[in-house]
Amino acid sequence: MVHSDIIRVGVNGYGVIGKRVAAAVRQQDDMILVGVADVSADWRLRLAARMGFSLYGAAPGAALAMQRAGLPVAGDLDDLIASVDVMVDCTPKGIGAANAEVYRRKDKPFIVQGGEKHEVAGHSFVAESSYAGALGRPATRVVSCNTTSIVRTLTALKQAGLLRRARGTLLRRATDPWESDRGGIMNTLAPEPQIPSHQGPDAQSVDPDLDVVTMAVKVPETIAHLHYWSVQMTRAADKAEVVAAFLASSRIAAIRMDDGLTALNSVKELMADLGRPHDNLYEVALWTDMLRVQGDELFYAYMVDNQAIVIPETIDAIRALSGRIAAPAVSIARTDSSLGIGALDRLGPPDQVGDS
Amino acid sequence: MVHSDIIRVGVNGYGVIGKRVAAAVRQQDDMILVGVADVSADWRLRLAARMGFSLYGAAPGAALAMQRAGLPVAGDLDDLIASVDVMVDCTPKGIGAANAEVYRRKDKPFIVQGGEKHEVAGHSFVAESSYAGALGRPATRVVSCNTTSIVRTLTALKQAGLLRRARGTLLRRATDPWESDRGGIMNTLAPEPQIPSHQGPDAQSVDPDLDVVTMAVKVPETIAHLHYWSVQMTRAADKAEVVAAFLASSRIAAIRMDDGLTALNSVKELMADLGRPHDNLYEVALWTDMLRVQGDELFYAYMVDNQAIVIPETIDAIRALSGRIAAPAVSIARTDSSLGIGALDRLGPPDQVGDS
Amino acid sequence: MVHSDIIRVGVNGYGVIGKRVAAAVRQQDDMILVGVADVSADWRLRLAARMGFSLYGAAPGAALAMQRAGLPVAGDLDDLIASVDVMVDCTPKGIGAANAEVYRRKDKPFIVQGGEKHEVAGHSFVAESSYAGALGRPATRVVSCNTTSIVRTLTALKQAGLLRRARGTLLRRATDPWESDRGGIMNTLAPEPQIPSHQGPDAQSVDPDLDVVTMAVKVPETIAHLHYWSVQMTRAADKAEVVAAFLASSRIAAIRMDDGLTALNSVKELMADLGRPHDNLYEVALWTDMLRVQGDELFYAYMVDNQAIVIPETIDAIRALSGRIAAPAVSIARTDSSLGIGALDRLGPPDQVGDS
Amino acid sequence: MVHSDIIRVGVNGYGVIGKRVAAAVRQQDDMILVGVADVSADWRLRLAARMGFSLYGAAPGAALAMQRAGLPVAGDLDDLIASVDVMVDCTPKGIGAANAEVYRRKDKPFIVQGGEKHEVAGHSFVAESSYAGALGRPATRVVSCNTTSIVRTLTALKQAGLLRRARGTLLRRATDPWESDRGGIMNTLAPEPQIPSHQGPDAQSVDPDLDVVTMAVKVPETIAHLHYWSVQMTRAADKAEVVAAFLASSRIAAIRMDDGLTALNSVKELMADLGRPHDNLYEVALWTDMLRVQGDELFYAYMVDNQAIVIPETIDAIRALSGRIAAPAVSIARTDSSLGIGALDRLGPPDQVGDS
Repeated sequence: MVHSDIIRVGVNGYGVIGKRVAAAVRQQDDMILVGVADVSADWRLRLAARMGFSLYGAAPGAALAMQRAGLPVAGDLDDLIASVDVMVDCTPKGIGAANAEVYRRKDKPFIVQGGEKHEVAGHSFVAESSYAGALGRPATRVVSCNTTSIVRTLTALKQAGLLRRARGTLLRRATDPWESDRGGIMNTLAPEPQIPSHQGPDAQSVDPDLDVVTMAVKVPETIAHLHYWSVQMTRAADKAEVVAAFLASSRIAAIRMDDGLTALNSVKELMADLGRPHDNLYEVALWTDMLRVQGDELFYAYMVDNQAIVIPETIDAIRALSGRIAAPAVSIARTDSSLGIGALDRLGPPDQVGDS
Repeated sequence: MVHSDIIRVGVNGYGVIGKRVAAAVRQQDDMILVGVADVSADWRLRLAARMGFSLYGAAPGAALAMQRAGLPVAGDLDDLIASVDVMVDCTPKGIGAANAEVYRRKDKPFIVQGGEKHEVAGHSFVAESSYAGALGRPATRVVSCNTTSIVRTLTALKQAGLLRRARGTLLRRATDPWESDRGGIMNTLAPEPQIPSHQGPDAQSVDPDLDVVTMAVKVPETIAHLHYWSVQMTRAADKAEVVAAFLASSRIAAIRMDDGLTALNSVKELMADLGRPHDNLYEVALWTDMLRVQGDELFYAYMVDNQAIVIPETIDAIRALSGRIAAPAVSIARTDSSLGIGALDRLGPPDQVGDS
Repeated sequence: MVHSDIIRVGVNGYGVIGKRVAAAVRQQDDMILVGVADVSADWRLRLAARMGFSLYGAAPGAALAMQRAGLPVAGDLDDLIASVDVMVDCTPKGIGAANAEVYRRKDKPFIVQGGEKHEVAGHSFVAESSYAGALGRPATRVVSCNTTSIVRTLTALKQAGLLRRARGTLLRRATDPWESDRGGIMNTLAPEPQIPSHQGPDAQSVDPDLDVVTMAVKVPETIAHLHYWSVQMTRAADKAEVVAAFLASSRIAAIRMDDGLTALNSVKELMADLGRPHDNLYEVALWTDMLRVQGDELFYAYMVDNQAIVIPETIDAIRALSGRIAAPAVSIARTDSSLGIGALDRLGPPDQVGDS
Repeated sequence: MVHSDIIRVGVNGYGVIGKRVAAAVRQQDDMILVGVADVSADWRLRLAARMGFSLYGAAPGAALAMQRAGLPVAGDLDDLIASVDVMVDCTPKGIGAANAEVYRRKDKPFIVQGGEKHEVAGHSFVAESSYAGALGRPATRVVSCNTTSIVRTLTALKQAGLLRRARGTLLRRATDPWESDRGGIMNTLAPEPQIPSHQGPDAQSVDPDLDVVTMAVKVPETIAHLHYWSVQMTRAADKAEVVAAFLASSRIAAIRMDDGLTALNSVKELMADLGRPHDNLYEVALWTDMLRVQGDELFYAYMVDNQAIVIPETIDAIRALSGRIAAPAVSIARTDSSLGIGALDRLGPPDQVGDS
């Protein structure tokens, strides 16, 4: 690979998503991480510096505050934008929309996260569904963790010709594991006030053909989301066929209750045992022994690591915007290989997958 | 009412359900609580004595242990059985099945709880669905909290001619509020390993016509269960019609998100503010503003107080077994009145119910 | 009692504390609850109306909003103040300080809660320590739940001549049971950033002689606070003497691990079984079998129901401000009797108290 | 280093501690991990195989079950014992005591964990306190996570001549993060029934001179323990002196509230950001800005990662039993370097440590 093939990437916002994107960019042999921009100067940024990331001030005064905190600073946001091929915005909801104007004004391809509206980028991204549409675009939006999981799984059913309509109940972790100031709920469940919840329509921003309705509820845990689905198929099918349809996607991993993976936390421990950074679960982890087919109806549940699932999509989105790789499957395979995606399925004895 | 009309009731097992049944029996003017039997002698039984309940030893040695603990004891289980018209068994799962043999041998009508199998009683009870079938029977089983809520709500839809099939996701509180030794889960979600979960088939033990499939998951809270439903109706309907169908049942109460009842715990606080004993929520509490109709599909969520919902059913079941009251509606109305059921709906401005 | 002896009471703020104060005032035969003022108009106020409380708008526009919500309204805050002998302010932290100016301007005796500073009232109140000092004063402050428990217990040791100095670790419930929007923490512990925490100095606002240092930490539960104490006594003592010193206070209740009261939630369940409104635990519940004396050192733990412990103090404070009853013991006994305080100790076999 | 200097290590029990010990042994350049023994054959062992660990069956039939599950098996426990210089027992509480008889019969030096009694090994180990006493012994016991933290911190004060007596309140995480079946408590706090709790006497099994009393309570979180201490010093000291005494130990790390490390979970996130396996916090993490000196009294709080803190001690204990390295400081430095211990303190600006 010659130097000009390397995609130079900047990350704005070094939080839950930003730090994972930065680490993942570094693991790509066709990308280089130019730096990360942020507005704070506490232990998080000291860790970024320790990781060897170049730091940029993301707002007026931020660079100065970093310097005062003893952090090495490479410049401000404008400097970072000027030095990259693609900007990945990982700032909190709403701020990304404002930043989008800046990137656009500078004619710099950019990615925003799922907290922003579809209109901010004009395109919504899940690799296996909409990579091609993002090729060479000025911007795309990597949809939220929940929506990403919905599009991945329903696309798998759709590609197998099995999907008529899907109705899901989404149990949302109330806040992130590191967070102790905001969003916690204790000994209660808090339904989202509206049915349908926004995730169904959001999935349609990626693929308008999906017939999907979601209901959502906030639950008192921090590890991951959990989805339950009731799907009307186009016809009766047997369980093996359905499982095969799901596992045709490298980003849906089979897990099994009878293997001891009986709850969200044991799956998360498996990720730690795998040695993944931050115990990231990039895949939709779907219980294949729990999955049930009843005539033309299908029932299943899966786990979504809200901190990690969008990381591979973001890497693919960078490639799509850069236009360097046209074939979705090529980018996906490269991302998967770099992040160790697929390891889960290779762990289990293949003859056990899907039977019950 | 002449003395012979009074139903003499005995309660075996003074735990979460037993103590609520005992208190509710006392509030009926056509019943008398002869006493409660149990095997322990700690603060729980001292409270029972303080409430004025006659205590019986439920197992060999139990009466003696109670006496040694300074509790007044009226006799043993045989004495209690001999003194009543109906026995209500509220012992832990599995023990009720053994006790059933004892009651049956003594030819004493009895009720077991939903932890036991249908076969233990040969009849399964939800007042609005199967009261008539229990009339004068030797035994019935008040089904579990989750199943009771399912039968109540689907019966309401069925009676309005709206029900084709129902698919539900059940979020089950992991353990009871007073419990600190068993069943707790922390910062995780634990799916039930089988789909369908047992509640769907269990509902069919009350009404075989119900087309219902359930999936269930244990969640880390202790207050109540929460159900999400996706229902295929027989035809398109408007929201007002569906809400009216639900509220035709006195045991389904309308609550509203926009009234500040936004989570399980605020509804529970409402019960405390109402002054109900143990903050009991006897009704299925269904969010009417969240409920959504989309063509011939219906989506809704409701809360189930697993400690309280079966209490009115148990009172009705006592009457049904006694044969004193033949009309279900008469018993239901009497139970409702004694327990304050219906208060919830009368609280809200009637013109707000159901619109959104 | 002639009519002029009746103390007319107004409650401003119908939240966690306000609703309990209102209910408790109603249970006093020397008080009359004129009404409650608030700024909201949702289910909480509908319940107040249902309880028969007269409602007043606590802020401009509040009365009108109540009327629009179909609630009967008796007037605004000025009307309420004009109709009472004592105002009890139960509004959120900070608002009480502003209200104090209003009450003072109208020359109306008033009580503020522990969220306000000592200076707002100029006097801080715990019945067994500072009742006398509040007699006939224009205002007093019922100190916070934690501080109330500290002053109660250390006063008991002081009166027995045993207290030299006390060092405590306070585990604070993170938010209230009904709350799902604010303050929740999940799967973590959040230390208060400062040692000493504010409760130690706050106890000295009631009794400057107390040598007390506290450290505090927020824990992920909603039921109650839990305090652990390490006390340097003035001399070696035996356990029975220490337990007797504590139980000389009617507002410290003995509970025992070996009676099955092994955690906060089982004690709360005991309150529900006692039939107390809102399961209120008015007493400091102190584990007497866990308490340990080692030479001149004393170690113990107790539970504090942050929603209920200040209710009896507030009732006593009303009497103190009114000047109707001069002897602290007379007011305390009257309050205790009306609220059922003391029931706990009478439940246990007396010969078991304190031994281990 | 010649081959004969390499210590061959076997690990019995591949659970929370065993897998961390195995990984840490591998990181030592003077040790070789011969293999791990266990009794199960689920995903945990598949991960071990994937990590390249040789597997041994730890009980009759275990090797066969592993083979049937498709796992490569190197032998049984006897084979493993025969192949190593030191056995590290990481089996559940009580099983280690039985295994100790086996190791002893085979004359093989061994380490048991803190769940076992002192008598099982006859020596209790914390590197900075009792390394020398373990040199060349047949066995030692690495004490529990809580006890390890107590001995580390009090040894630091003792070595600075500051320690008279220490009184601690220990908040114990209720169960491990991966666990969903046992030990969870929900929305409550469960005090240990006995004061003093066992950790104080257990610390004296390492250093009989420590004057330490502990009280303990189980709290509803899974991340880490949290200790609060009130220490009577030998004399008045200033804060800088005390902080310096603590930080003289490489295994006590300074963290600061004002750096954003405000709760257990943010410290754990810092470990993940550091890229440590399983987010291990090997150090006692002590808040230096929260620490308070008041005359001759000292107050502070620290966090204990119960899954990780004993790992460096176990590595040191292996060296001590092997007799290869006589100087405690040499082993400690080697272990620290291999595990990245010390990184925390080097992160913060040195001039901020300890001031407030």
